[in-house]
Amino acid sequence: MPDPTARITSIDTYDVRFPTSRELDGSDAMNPDPDYSAAYLVLRTSAADGHEGHGFTFTIGRGNDVQVAAIDALRGHVVGRSVVELCADPGVLYRDLVGDSQLRWLGPEKGVMHMAIGAVVNAVWDLAAKREGKPLWRLLADAAPAWLVSQVDFRYLTDALTPDEALELLTKGKQGAAERAADLLRRGYPAYTTSPGWLGYSDEKLTRLAEEAVADGFTQIKLKVGADLDDDIRRCRTARAAVGPDIRMAIDANQRWDVAEAVEWTNALAEFDPYWIEEPTSPDDVLGHAAVRRGVHPVKVATGEHVQNRIVFKQLLQAEAVDFLQLDAARVAGVNENLAILLLAAKFGVPVCPHAGGVGLCELVQHLSMFDYVALSGTTEDRVVEFVDHLHEHFLDPVMIDRGHYRAPTEPGFSATMRQSSLDAYRYPDGAFWAADLAAPTPEARA
Amino acid sequence: MPDPTARITSIDTYDVRFPTSRELDGSDAMNPDPDYSAAYLVLRTSAADGHEGHGFTFTIGRGNDVQVAAIDALRGHVVGRSVVELCADPGVLYRDLVGDSQLRWLGPEKGVMHMAIGAVVNAVWDLAAKREGKPLWRLLADAAPAWLVSQVDFRYLTDALTPDEALELLTKGKQGAAERAADLLRRGYPAYTTSPGWLGYSDEKLTRLAEEAVADGFTQIKLKVGADLDDDIRRCRTARAAVGPDIRMAIDANQRWDVAEAVEWTNALAEFDPYWIEEPTSPDDVLGHAAVRRGVHPVKVATGEHVQNRIVFKQLLQAEAVDFLQLDAARVAGVNENLAILLLAAKFGVPVCPHAGGVGLCELVQHLSMFDYVALSGTTEDRVVEFVDHLHEHFLDPVMIDRGHYRAPTEPGFSATMRQSSLDAYRYPDGAFWAADLAAPTPEARA
Repeated sequence: MPDPTARITSIDTYDVRFPTSRELDGSDAMNPDPDYSAAYLVLRTSAADGHEGHGFTFTIGRGNDVQVAAIDALRGHVVGRSVVELCADPGVLYRDLVGDSQLRWLGPEKGVMHMAIGAVVNAVWDLAAKREGKPLWRLLADAAPAWLVSQVDFRYLTDALTPDEALELLTKGKQGAAERAADLLRRGYPAYTTSPGWLGYSDEKLTRLAEEAVADGFTQIKLKVGADLDDDIRRCRTARAAVGPDIRMAIDANQRWDVAEAVEWTNALAEFDPYWIEEPTSPDDVLGHAAVRRGVHPVKVATGEHVQNRIVFKQLLQAEAVDFLQLDAARVAGVNENLAILLLAAKFGVPVCPHAGGVGLCELVQHLSMFDYVALSGTTEDRVVEFVDHLHEHFLDPVMIDRGHYRAPTEPGFSATMRQSSLDAYRYPDGAFWAADLAAPTPEARA
Repeated sequence: MPDPTARITSIDTYDVRFPTSRELDGSDAMNPDPDYSAAYLVLRTSAADGHEGHGFTFTIGRGNDVQVAAIDALRGHVVGRSVVELCADPGVLYRDLVGDSQLRWLGPEKGVMHMAIGAVVNAVWDLAAKREGKPLWRLLADAAPAWLVSQVDFRYLTDALTPDEALELLTKGKQGAAERAADLLRRGYPAYTTSPGWLGYSDEKLTRLAEEAVADGFTQIKLKVGADLDDDIRRCRTARAAVGPDIRMAIDANQRWDVAEAVEWTNALAEFDPYWIEEPTSPDDVLGHAAVRRGVHPVKVATGEHVQNRIVFKQLLQAEAVDFLQLDAARVAGVNENLAILLLAAKFGVPVCPHAGGVGLCELVQHLSMFDYVALSGTTEDRVVEFVDHLHEHFLDPVMIDRGHYRAPTEPGFSATMRQSSLDAYRYPDGAFWAADLAAPTPEARA
């Protein structure tokens, strides 16, 4: 019997940074030297079970401190809440945070403040799932449709999706859910890999990693493009030669282009049969994406990792601007807003292929796609979750990839918990790694 | 002869908050109790002239500290720069800030980080104008068209506006500029007032302030709506009775509605002849605004104070979603991005009627509209700058309103400099006002 008097006692925050820029891991046309980082938080409670809620915003280095400050600004909304009430209905906190009339001015519902809300909301879901003894995907798949609908904020959505329509989609999603859950536990969820395709890698490394990806059972890889067309032609040719004609090869411009350039550049790579062009232009440009999509057919268009909220996703769907919706677990306001986004995608019949990589994004987002398969869209057809093989060793319950599939997590929670030793080493600037690194006499003497 | 060795030596930041919520000044359907605030900064230099650059982000209270942290995160990009080079070409810094590949992840180009960039960029323009000995509107109006074009980032805009088109608009804008500058100094720039229309005011106060507005020479007022339809009907009837049939009466929903509700509610107020409906729905919803505009004709649609950047403004114009574009001086990345927005509006032939009020927004934005009149659109027809009579006493060079017009500033700079005594009193939480207020034993004992 849960203790009805238990309260949230603290939010502890951590500025965690990994020095990934030194290996060119994660390099693309817009992000040449990211230091993968997390503005990380731990919710602690007075409950005797000792469970904590962990959550984070992913950033790529500078500004991680600003993100931590934004999470700190939410403390007053959370500390003191009843744990039982919070976990029974995370939507109450989500609405309170998004609706704070003063904080709202800093967005609304976008950027630093919104991602901070996402980190806190996701930590609550982590706590709720741990207390329930279920992995998050299972908690969501087991939930009653009406309760899931109650977790969604339909403000600004009702011209595209009403609560009644959402209820209908989720009720239909229950049919066959038990069989799909069993199938998921057996087979896992399809993944694709971006590990071969970073811009900073040599052709030899690209070939080797692409061949390894196919040997490992992946049926789709992704290449970063957009810095130099001649390089892109060479790299696409190299990758296509390595994987053969039957493997899907997506390309990703990371917002590098204007509309006309996106169309021309993508079409110049068409001979290598790219499966989708990802982030061809600004994530804010709904009409631009629609124009690109019309211009690059039959290459498909994917976007979403930088899409700020459900309102922009709604428009991308209304404008028929995307073939694949790439939600991100930590860009928007957490699980609640991602439920809205999954429902919108289901309504419009657009497959969700989440963004992952970074720090812990694979760990989080697998749960959302697995819920979508088991209890909403009911299919994995044309659906893949991105996989990047970086930094998983820092998590207590890291993703497991098996023959190109994410294995379904069975541990309770949202797989968000970072190892204490990693927090201690990579806390910036005073963790053990950074203290030593910043004390080094020259850049060359650094790690 | 300016000292070529002068450098930026510091950015000093201030968390300044005014306790406006206690008077219900600024109350609307989404923002019931704002404490008007500024995340404020001062650029200091080693130049002998002693000029400083002042800039700020306007917020409404909580989170102002997060905004200050974001400005602090930009310090390394600014301190040490050559003052001569910075002021000769602010576009270099603007591009460096927006293009910082790690900070960019926190937006891109939206929310807290983007507004921080706007504050710093605006401070540079303030410094540049002071060193030039001109009010900013005059510095911009005197500038060569090619140089102004060089200040704009056309990324993501070229499907709507090219550099060549911008050059043509600005070259045409030079014709008759001297006459218009003289006219501006004589007549000022048309204003409208929001002071009567805050939601928290009684009908008596509304009537009194509306009558005063007309007596003061304003030809347009604005009312907040969207909390309760019966109240809105009564308040619109009251205001219309107070001002008569010939005064334009805009209404402002502050993002309160979904699309269908916006259409119904606005049409329910149509009998009072509202001039425009402002922010009927989410500022992110381009397609939603377009649908509202189709649904409320002949009432016009205005939006922009929360529009995050030039890319969303571009789409609002492309989608024919707005009749009036309400740029904000401090929401986007400063003067450089607002040049892009003014050029987009000129290209599409949509009048710019800036948002103002808050802390110092009137002071800033008047310069942009005056430049637009003198050297770009060349007209004030159907153009008005918002005016709210709050907090001007805290500025060294406050706006001056005369017969419903902003008088053209003649002091050098961007009118952004707050009095040191105000910074000292209202710095949060340690300024004199707040230290006393927070030490008061009960809320009732506070100011």
